[in-house]
Amino acid sequence: MAAPGDLARLSINQETVKQWSLPELAEGCAASGVGSVGLWRAPVQEYGVERAARLMRDSGLTVTSLCRGGFFTAAEPGPLAVALDDNRAAIDEAATLGTGTLVLVSGGLPAGDRDIAGARERVADAIGVLAPYAAERGVRLAIEPLHPMYASDRCVVSTLGQALDIAERFPAEQVGVVVDTYHLWWDDTAPAQIARAGEAGRIACFQLADWVTPLPEGVLLGRGQLGDGCVDLRGFREQVDAAGYRGAVEVEIFSPALWARDGSEVLAEIAARYRSHVL
Amino acid sequence: MAAPGDLARLSINQETVKQWSLPELAEGCAASGVGSVGLWRAPVQEYGVERAARLMRDSGLTVTSLCRGGFFTAAEPGPLAVALDDNRAAIDEAATLGTGTLVLVSGGLPAGDRDIAGARERVADAIGVLAPYAAERGVRLAIEPLHPMYASDRCVVSTLGQALDIAERFPAEQVGVVVDTYHLWWDDTAPAQIARAGEAGRIACFQLADWVTPLPEGVLLGRGQLGDGCVDLRGFREQVDAAGYRGAVEVEIFSPALWARDGSEVLAEIAARYRSHVL
Repeated sequence: MAAPGDLARLSINQETVKQWSLPELAEGCAASGVGSVGLWRAPVQEYGVERAARLMRDSGLTVTSLCRGGFFTAAEPGPLAVALDDNRAAIDEAATLGTGTLVLVSGGLPAGDRDIAGARERVADAIGVLAPYAAERGVRLAIEPLHPMYASDRCVVSTLGQALDIAERFPAEQVGVVVDTYHLWWDDTAPAQIARAGEAGRIACFQLADWVTPLPEGVLLGRGQLGDGCVDLRGFREQVDAAGYRGAVEVEIFSPALWARDGSEVLAEIAARYRSHVL
Repeated sequence: MAAPGDLARLSINQETVKQWSLPELAEGCAASGVGSVGLWRAPVQEYGVERAARLMRDSGLTVTSLCRGGFFTAAEPGPLAVALDDNRAAIDEAATLGTGTLVLVSGGLPAGDRDIAGARERVADAIGVLAPYAAERGVRLAIEPLHPMYASDRCVVSTLGQALDIAERFPAEQVGVVVDTYHLWWDDTAPAQIARAGEAGRIACFQLADWVTPLPEGVLLGRGQLGDGCVDLRGFREQVDAAGYRGAVEVEIFSPALWARDGSEVLAEIAARYRSHVL
């Protein structure tokens, strides 16, 4: 059930309000007129996957994505097999939650590895193994390019162009891409790649966060509230719209400053910023 | 005077051993068989530009680059005029030091600005103003693309492709580019862009640092000693060589861990790593 009015496309990724339990998230979204959420595996597993699926259904919430599979750049057969098994579990969880989108963060370079092109090939290989399994369960794999500052330790796929180069080896209904403003805002080729992704119907997920500095140590938890940074969020939204995307606009902000605040207050602020900086 | 033997192309950027004064740098390089250095404006100004030039000459050291001009993305006429004046001073200093290469770091987005494409256009405009002034003094401007994690606060030019798009608006003898492994290692388009730069004779400077994680707060001082990270340094050196570059291989590592050590020991380690990971 989509929310009414101008928040109809807004989805809240649960990491944005990670101070909330799943029931608090469901209640808070209902109270704020937000009809969709993106979920993460760890809190869902902790709560119970079936139980979380029931909670979302009973609350009338649409699950727009599950984060995340991936981390399958291992070169050794043993670790690779473990990673693939874990990804099959993630696909099962996505199917149980009723979301058609499993976000994939590829993983970085194994220790001592200096061949990033080779690691990217292994990403394509892993997706080739997993895509049919996912498709049988109604789940599409969504390759997320992460900002190049994560290339060594988190995600060797750094640009939308690279993500599409891999995705296009597979049917569009099996493998799509994630467009996340935080990761792509600096890239002058992003507009053309968004158009390329849209034409092929491969935009599986559209996520928003703003870019603010200074970056914190480890650069993982420094994302900005919508409007606090230098990203042209509305420009991105207009681009994915022009490319034919009609799905959710998911807000995913990793920010200790937001986590320290009351969840409802954060959600209200996001809704206000969404109206002023995105719509 | 180039150093003999296999260190002939090695240049030490002074920020790599910033624990050293300029005389210590000159003495240390002579003792280690390193014949070239890259200098920075602030320590050179502090020591005296003419005096530094004389010291380098008397020590038989070649100055391979001066860092840095740039930071001219201001949209307002007043701040822009100040930036351009400062760049003219940097060009004069490079000429006095006898180096033909002034490295340009463009600057980031002005406060409140969300138009990165517009900021990149202002970079091209500023270079258009400065290039003839530099050429008259025997100095070539070298546009350095910095890693995309610096795009908002330090350098809106993030890829070698973007740098070349700007550089190619001007004669190759006036405007070149910097190939720095730390900034470009993640980019799958870098090899093609290095070839493009080399064909046009635009590789003005080749700098080395390795990529290590976790990144520190502010992400400025986290560069790795050669061989400590995941960059295929030899692969980059082979690429610039294949593109026709015959200039210095300049080691520029910002690392508090290196600064805390004895400069001569650091220099010896760099020479050893250069032999094992670059040559």
